[in-house]
This record gives sequence, structure tokens and C-alpha cells, in this order.
Amino acid sequence: MKLAPPPGMRDFYPEDMRRQNWLFDAWRNVSLRFGFEEYEGPIFETLELYTIKSGEEIVDQLFHFADRGGREFAIRPEMTPTLARLVAARANALPRPIKWFSIPRMCRAERPQRGRLREFFQWNVDILGVDDPLADAEVIAVAAELFRAIGVTSDEVVIRYSSRRLAAAVLQDFGITPDACERAFQLIDRMEKRGGESFVEEWDRQYKEVVSGATVLDFLASADIDTCLKMITRTAGDAAHATAHEFSQLQRHLEHLNVADYCAFDMKVVRGLAYYTGTIFEAFPRTLDMRALLGGGRYDSLTELVGGPRVPGVGFGAGDAPLFEFLRELKRWPETGSKIDVFVIDADTELFPAAQRVASALRAAGLTVDYSYKRQNVGKQFKQAANRNARFAVVVGQEYRDRQQLVVKNFATGAQEVHLERELLADTARYLGR
Amino acid sequence: MKLAPPPGMRDFYPEDMRRQNWLFDAWRNVSLRFGFEEYEGPIFETLELYTIKSGEEIVDQLFHFADRGGREFAIRPEMTPTLARLVAARANALPRPIKWFSIPRMCRAERPQRGRLREFFQWNVDILGVDDPLADAEVIAVAAELFRAIGVTSDEVVIRYSSRRLAAAVLQDFGITPDACERAFQLIDRMEKRGGESFVEEWDRQYKEVVSGATVLDFLASADIDTCLKMITRTAGDAAHATAHEFSQLQRHLEHLNVADYCAFDMKVVRGLAYYTGTIFEAFPRTLDMRALLGGGRYDSLTELVGGPRVPGVGFGAGDAPLFEFLRELKRWPETGSKIDVFVIDADTELFPAAQRVASALRAAGLTVDYSYKRQNVGKQFKQAANRNARFAVVVGQEYRDRQQLVVKNFATGAQEVHLERELLADTARYLGR
Repeated sequence: MKLAPPPGMRDFYPEDMRRQNWLFDAWRNVSLRFGFEEYEGPIFETLELYTIKSGEEIVDQLFHFADRGGREFAIRPEMTPTLARLVAARANALPRPIKWFSIPRMCRAERPQRGRLREFFQWNVDILGVDDPLADAEVIAVAAELFRAIGVTSDEVVIRYSSRRLAAAVLQDFGITPDACERAFQLIDRMEKRGGESFVEEWDRQYKEVVSGATVLDFLASADIDTCLKMITRTAGDAAHATAHEFSQLQRHLEHLNVADYCAFDMKVVRGLAYYTGTIFEAFPRTLDMRALLGGGRYDSLTELVGGPRVPGVGFGAGDAPLFEFLRELKRWPETGSKIDVFVIDADTELFPAAQRVASALRAAGLTVDYSYKRQNVGKQFKQAANRNARFAVVVGQEYRDRQQLVVKNFATGAQEVHLERELLADTARYLGR
Repeated sequence: MKLAPPPGMRDFYPEDMRRQNWLFDAWRNVSLRFGFEEYEGPIFETLELYTIKSGEEIVDQLFHFADRGGREFAIRPEMTPTLARLVAARANALPRPIKWFSIPRMCRAERPQRGRLREFFQWNVDILGVDDPLADAEVIAVAAELFRAIGVTSDEVVIRYSSRRLAAAVLQDFGITPDACERAFQLIDRMEKRGGESFVEEWDRQYKEVVSGATVLDFLASADIDTCLKMITRTAGDAAHATAHEFSQLQRHLEHLNVADYCAFDMKVVRGLAYYTGTIFEAFPRTLDMRALLGGGRYDSLTELVGGPRVPGVGFGAGDAPLFEFLRELKRWPETGSKIDVFVIDADTELFPAAQRVASALRAAGLTVDYSYKRQNVGKQFKQAANRNARFAVVVGQEYRDRQQLVVKNFATGAQEVHLERELLADTARYLGR
């Protein structure tokens, strides 16, 4: 019998789990601080929910199966379709704005190979029901604050953002028709992976007559926001003016929310997914050559895909694996040792029942408490207390027999004190607090 | 497109998720207080991991599928095989005792019908590497403390416990050979579901020559622990004496751990799973006719099943659904409203950037903070603050323009105070604490 997990799947031994929980807590904490509420969905959905959004070609990337009734399901490869379903089902009842986050586990049927996980966790943060760049700025700010919360500075990570509407207006200025935009976006999206040369070649094959790939490449690499805004307000109509205005608002909100240092305008960001309609963004390490740490944007017709009414939205997803890879590269692997508050020690076996009663009382007071499951001498029990990283040892010994007193040893200071049992138990915060 | 979740699966809207998190927090908190560490495993395992433990007949109860390489997997229907695999893989490296808990989600291919969930969460608590009734008592105490922690008294719930070894010795006294014990246990286990009459009939069909079903039924229903212990120490050998001694120790530990009031010896408890080898227990509502709230026991060769060395263990699993059902019946449905600390209000649109900066600073200080995404009058913003169950409103108004002061309204007391922005932000615990 193979004792390893299935290929591409992970086991979480306690030390791994502590690290996962450290990240989940950070994700949860930042989301809550921004007023988001947590939701969850089923681990598998109908296969149709995924093909409706991504076409039949996604089926190969899914773990799918049928039940005895012949209904087809797939383990979720992303949370967005579930989110769309939940919101669409109660579109009229949910109070707006809908500010939701989730930390789902999900699976993709990747070919097992090093670094390619088949199962992972992904933080999802979304605001629905608000058609204003303020919502876009809020979700970007959540992403930035996560980095700040885990000690990643704005020198180390950047959230590159742009707008599909803005990019479409710019491309239009170059002569690309609105109909051709989506295909042009796909080429731009692949540029980062395949390199500039391959981009120029592909572009020229399709649009050389309109504008050369070299010109576009040069523009994308160097365009600052002012150039873009000037360009589209000069040539385009009212819609482009509105786009420019919205984009300026987004930038101002990012400043007021104190995250502008984490953000940079970048015309090369378009995102490969067709359902994005406005703002788009991706976070990357500033100096390391790594994949995106998170990605998201505005999608205004997701709920319509599943048959619901139109509910505009903006959000992002961030996987656990890229972030841990990044922290490992930064040599900032989280310290998450195992700790307990108190280890209770009995001086001899006859005092063990008293030690159990003390342990129970301390646990009832909310402390994390352990004791030896073997009756052994005090020295060995102290050693076990140290191995468990206990903050305190509480010894039930001769003083207990004589005067109902407990000996408290503080491992951090080395100090040793003696307290009456009832006093210690009546005020654990005082005697055993941090 | 159907907007409901797949049959037997649940959506967790924020109000549902808060309730789930309330339970998960209680489970986690009790486990940690007892010195347990959290672990997790993959959402699916090789199909073999389940058939090896439960035989081919389990396949029908699993959601299973193959990857492109033809390997067969199944979504986990329980955590025990994963636990066995994790422990077996590092049997020699893991420090003992191994005190682990987990809160996995899992699936069973139930026929969809009312109340039959296909996906659920289950709290798993196990101690491995300790072959002593003390470990059995500790896990039972964890279960009892969970009830205490969520306000379920020992008048409302009972953890019925027994021992398979003890039961085997008793059955031997009745003339049932050790080989026949497992089948006899199955009959006893089904008694609760099928009733006494059906039990007698089934029993008599198999063992009437040895002892009548009516005699056994009568004994099981009335046997107290002293009768059983006397019975087996009178007739049986050294092994039975050891069993009797261990069982007495278990009872003493339950007393010293202050949970004896939640526990009751019950010879009818044998558990249907063949891998249990010693202590077994199940929690039931005392007065309501409901299914078990949790069940567990000692298993001493689980790790051998997956090819590892022998590691004795004891533990239990408790599903989320039966517990919520129970709380609903008790009319003690947890109150888990949505709350935030602060709602920031701008007196006019020009002050909105300042309001955003205040909100960001308060969020950075760790508070949960929201503000209106629509620019609207102060009255409407106050209404939104009330809808969000904010503890405080912080108003950025004329006082801010004139003197950098913020107005703080405490919704609980109705009190309104004015503070300098820098003082408020420098000591949020003082001005905005609980």
C-alpha cells in the first residue's frame, strides 16, 4: 500500500496545518476588517455549471463523475461559478452591496508533475451589486492589505492594474475594431509567457495591415496612464470619456485607501478570461520571476451566465501555493511552532488524580493544557513540558498535599511561584496570562 | 439553469457560514484546550484506501472517478483511512502521544432524499500511540466538553460507553465463542434501529442453542457495570481480569476529568465497525429520539491495514448535521448575527476622501470597518450603519474640517463623543473597544 497522498495532492501534518491556518487566518482577518462576510459552497457542482462558463474544453481539466441517477458532477476547479449561482439564486433578496469572501479548496485535473498541484486553496474576495470604481478599489485594497499584513512590502510585490475598457479604447485608437478586441487581448495576455518576439510575430500575422506588432509592443511597454487617457479622450467618444473618468477615480480611491504604493498601472495586463469587462489586476513579485500571486477584475454579466439577472461585480482569487512559494523565495517562511499554555505535572502517582482535576479546571478556563499520559518522574515530565513548548508548568506535589498549593514555573522567565489552588484557578489570567 | 446546489449538497450563505464557523470554532477550541493539534488530508484518496478497510461493497457509497492515467480515486467518505495513512507513513518519526484533530469535509453517495446529506463536515479527534484507558478517557472528555462548551447539559445528552473486550468476555460467559463475537456484535448494534423483537428473532435464528435472544436482550438492557465486572472476573481468565481492571480505570479517569456526569455505561453499545477493539462510545440526546451525535472507540490495528506498523489508537467522529439537528430540536439554535466594529460616515462628498483615510486607518488597527459605497446623506448612512450592526459610527463632518475632530457614536449606549483624529487613531482600544 502506498502511503503517499495521491499525485498532486497534499497531506497536512500538524506543522503544515499550522502554516495553512496562519495563511487562512490572515486571509480571513483582512477580509473581515474590510467588512466582508464569509460564504461557502459544495465541493462539487453539476458539470454543466462549468461548461456553461468555460465551454466543453474545460471537461478535461476537471475531476468529474456521475451519480447512480446519471447526473454529472465535477469537483470545483474555481469558485466563481458557485458565487454566480448563489448570488443569482437570491439576487433580489440579498442586501447590497454584497461583500463576500471564501477560502474554498478546489481541484484541477493537472497532469501530475513537480509543482503542479491537483488540489489547492484559493482566497476569493468579491463585491457585487456596485457599479462604481470604488468597489474595484476596495477589492484591490484588500489584496494589498493582505501583503502588508503578512509583512510583504510594496518594494517586494506590485499589483499591476489596467482596464479592459481603457485598453479597448486604446486599441480602437490604433484601428482595432471592438469585435477584434477579445482576440487582441488574448495575444497581449500571452505576451508575458511567450515573450515579445513571439507576440510581434503572432500580432503581425493577424493585424499587420492595421498596426504593426512592434508598434503595439513598444506602446504597451512604455505607455503611462496619462498618455493613455489623453489618447482616448482625444479621439474617442463619450463612452471613452466615461472610461477615462472612472479610471481616474479608481486611482484616487487607491490613494485614499492608502494602497497606491502597492499598485502600478500596466497596459500589458488584460487577463485571459473573456468575462472581465472593466478593471483588471494581477499581483506579481517585483524582483522575482514568478507566476501571478493573485488575479481578478470586474465582471458585469457573470450572474446572467447562470440564468440570473444582471448583477455587476468585481473580485479576485489568490491561491495558497504561489504565495507560499513567494514567501519561501523571500526566505520569510512563517514561524508557526506548536505551543501550549500549561503542562501539568504530578510529583507522584497518588497525586495524578489531583493533577487531572487541575488540568481539567485550567482547560475549562480556556487554557490549552496537556499532561503526561505515562506516570513518570518529575524530571521526565518537565522535559515533556519543554518539548511541548509549554509557557508554564504547574506542579502538583508535596505542597499540594500539605497546603493545597500548586507550584507554577514560567518557562520564559525561569521564575517559580507557589499559589493556593483556588486562587490560581480563580484568576488564571493573572497567574498564567501572557 | 438550476440555481439550487446539487442534490444533498449545501450552500452556505453568510448567515449559514457564521453558524458553521461557530461550530468549527467550538470544535477547534475544545480540541486545542486538550492539547490536540490540527491536521488535514486530500479531499480525495485512492479508491484502494477505502476498499482495503471496508471491502468492495463500499464503492457504491463513494463518489469515485479515474484520472487520465487510469488511476482510481474517491472523494473521502470518512477521515480514518487518511489518518491511518498519515500516521503509518511517519510512524517512527512522530513524537508520542499523537494527539490530532481535524474538521474535514467529506462526501457519501447517498440516494438524495430529505435529511440525507451527500456532503458534510465531521470533527475527528484521535490519540494514537497510547495503549492506556487514560487516552480513551481523554477523547471521551473532549466530546463531553464540546457539549458543555455549546451549552448542552448532561441532562440533555449522554455519552454511552462500553468495551468490546468487556462485551466479548460477557458473551463468552453466555457461551458465545470468540469467533462468533463479531457477528453477535452486529446483531446487538442493529438492535437500536430494528427493535428488540427483531433482535430476538435474529439472535435465536443463530444462537438459540447457546443462549436465547430474550435472555441476552434482558441482560443487555439491565446489566450494570458491577454485574458485568463480577460476571467476567468470576468465570474468565487473566485477560478478562485485565479488561475489568482497564475498564475500572477508564471510569476513574472520567471522574477525575470531571465528565462522569455526561457518561453512562451501556452494554448495548458495541458499534458496527469491526476495527474497534476495546472501548467504544456513542453520544445520544437523553430525551429525544434521534440518531447518534458522535461515535468512536479504540482501534488497535488501523495503521496495519494500510501496511504500517501497529500503532494503537482511540478516537471519534462527530458530524455537523446531527448536532445542528439536535440544537434545533432543543430550540437552542446558535445566535450568530453579522456585526462590524465601525461604520464611517461622511457629512458631505468632499469629506469622503478623509472618511476613506479614517476607515483605512481603523482597519489597519485591526477593527472591522465599513462605509457606504454610495454618496448619500448622513441619515441614510446612519441607517446603513444600523443595518450592518455596527458598534460605533465615526462621523467625518464639520468638526473634522475645523479642528480635525471625529464624532464617535456608540450604538449600544447612544453616547456621542468628539475626539481628535490622531488621538482616536492612536488608541482605538480605548475609544472603540468593547
